[in-house]
Amino acid sequence: MTPVSDEFGLIARLFAPLAAGYPGALDLKDDAALVEVPPGQRLVVTADAIVAGVHFLPDDPPDLVARKLVRVNLSDLAAMGAAPLGIVLAAAFPASATQEWLDAFAAGLGADLAEFAIPLIGGDTVATPGPATFAVTALGLVGAGRELRRSAALPGDDLWVSGTIGDGALGLLAARGELDLPAEAVAALADRYRLPRPRVGLGPRLIGLAHAAMDVSDGLCGDLEHICAASGVGAMVEAAEVPLSPAARLALAADPALLSRVLTGGDDYELLFTAPPDAADALRAVAVDAAVPLARIGRIVSGVGVVVVDGEGRAFGLAGSGYRHFGAA
Amino acid sequence: MTPVSDEFGLIARLFAPLAAGYPGALDLKDDAALVEVPPGQRLVVTADAIVAGVHFLPDDPPDLVARKLVRVNLSDLAAMGAAPLGIVLAAAFPASATQEWLDAFAAGLGADLAEFAIPLIGGDTVATPGPATFAVTALGLVGAGRELRRSAALPGDDLWVSGTIGDGALGLLAARGELDLPAEAVAALADRYRLPRPRVGLGPRLIGLAHAAMDVSDGLCGDLEHICAASGVGAMVEAAEVPLSPAARLALAADPALLSRVLTGGDDYELLFTAPPDAADALRAVAVDAAVPLARIGRIVSGVGVVVVDGEGRAFGLAGSGYRHFGAA
Repeated sequence: MTPVSDEFGLIARLFAPLAAGYPGALDLKDDAALVEVPPGQRLVVTADAIVAGVHFLPDDPPDLVARKLVRVNLSDLAAMGAAPLGIVLAAAFPASATQEWLDAFAAGLGADLAEFAIPLIGGDTVATPGPATFAVTALGLVGAGRELRRSAALPGDDLWVSGTIGDGALGLLAARGELDLPAEAVAALADRYRLPRPRVGLGPRLIGLAHAAMDVSDGLCGDLEHICAASGVGAMVEAAEVPLSPAARLALAADPALLSRVLTGGDDYELLFTAPPDAADALRAVAVDAAVPLARIGRIVSGVGVVVVDGEGRAFGLAGSGYRHFGAA
Repeated sequence: MTPVSDEFGLIARLFAPLAAGYPGALDLKDDAALVEVPPGQRLVVTADAIVAGVHFLPDDPPDLVARKLVRVNLSDLAAMGAAPLGIVLAAAFPASATQEWLDAFAAGLGADLAEFAIPLIGGDTVATPGPATFAVTALGLVGAGRELRRSAALPGDDLWVSGTIGDGALGLLAARGELDLPAEAVAALADRYRLPRPRVGLGPRLIGLAHAAMDVSDGLCGDLEHICAASGVGAMVEAAEVPLSPAARLALAADPALLSRVLTGGDDYELLFTAPPDAADALRAVAVDAAVPLARIGRIVSGVGVVVVDGEGRAFGLAGSGYRHFGAA
């Protein structure tokens, strides 16, 4: 039994094993860790923080809390075209955290570090009188000057998205028991919310093909607007082309008003990117290589803002979505 | 007025200006930041987390909270011999944080980033229902294979320390009003506790001269024991040689029992290192170049544990210090 107040003990028991395969972590026993960046590569750095009661629920399974935290960071790396290198974890545990909770959290962390073949490089462990709070800084590598940025979209680009959209937002409803769907569909959506699939295999393969890229974490329309603002362009999304999972199709069939949520809700962690039309064939080959479906959902245009059109090309609003920046209003 | 719940607004107003000079930060607007690591250099990575009510008091000046957070991380980089490159900040602000608190925190952060000539590279800003919680991941650079580790001490090495020892621990007492000393001494000690001086100019200059190194954050004796354990050696400290500030001398004159606290208390953020005796002249020159006093306080010996001896060479205990690993007991 290692009490939360015993920082060294916790690090040695829970976290040092996750760093054991990486010599530069120095067994988490030195003042800092050492990371090699090969010549011609650039380091890519991203961070995400989560708080119990805000970003996850205190009774969420602790292994999934850890895994989601790893995955949202890897999604940011993928959006830059970077291959993940390792993570740094700052963990503030409440004194009320049980041995079981700590062990399960570390086990989830270890499972994902193994799945994505990256080490824990370093970090800090402290006690908090408040809610459990975690910050991960993820490091990745990308060829110097080859990284994918939000600001590189050009008018005439096709707009692409990986996987399926809306499962994160619908999954939150499903996890709360607010969707009246078959149990299988509810489970599938809730799983997508709880355990994102960062497109780590796809991101690096987009280099040389995609212009702008980002990951869909805050919602398709809102994130697309970030690309548009950064690139000084507008975008037109064909709602009918937005790829949906079977469970999301069921949800929309039961309640078509959920389309707003699909297009503007968060937590998808798919990649949204733009590419010139002549890259389409190469992108279809990339989809096969990366084993991730890609869908062309619209195009980049001159101007500002994001317009969503229906099957007849009519712009429509996204009522009650909380999406305030809708360009077609 | 930017409410804490408006993450994008807070980042743009408070933090983007601190990243403006660093192109790789991409104005904190992309999924991740880009960091160049020159050929022949290794990246050095360290992290520290602090929580209001644990590591600082809610009514501590917010600029000093930010500056101490930056400095404890830079101290870890210096202990590896690394030059600081930049920091990543994960900040969880309570909704109760006032505009003034946030502005002062960011101003303190900016002041220290300017003082140490490093940028904010990236991070995350979230709201928390709990206490303000911050995690900094600091990045530095060191020549590949040249870094200073805790594990490189050899029997026969001299033991050196920078600056003065004990001001951090006495400064905590001073800040609490628990030291009966002239106001000037109280202020000097409290200032050392609140605003560490990371030895960023000294650390890189120790490369090629020092064997093992670390920073004194948890107390001289305890941290020295970390070096001894990592290196498989013992150490002998001459208490009379441990360098003291004028204010610490006053405190010890008034209450000699405070010596235990000086030798085992934390928050000094000086560098503790070992070096072969023939490096002494070069180290004295380094002290001049780095404008940081260096003192030889003992030596590394075969064996295990840390022994502190008085002026007559007698080992003595450190009563009531909370220092449980004392080797001479």
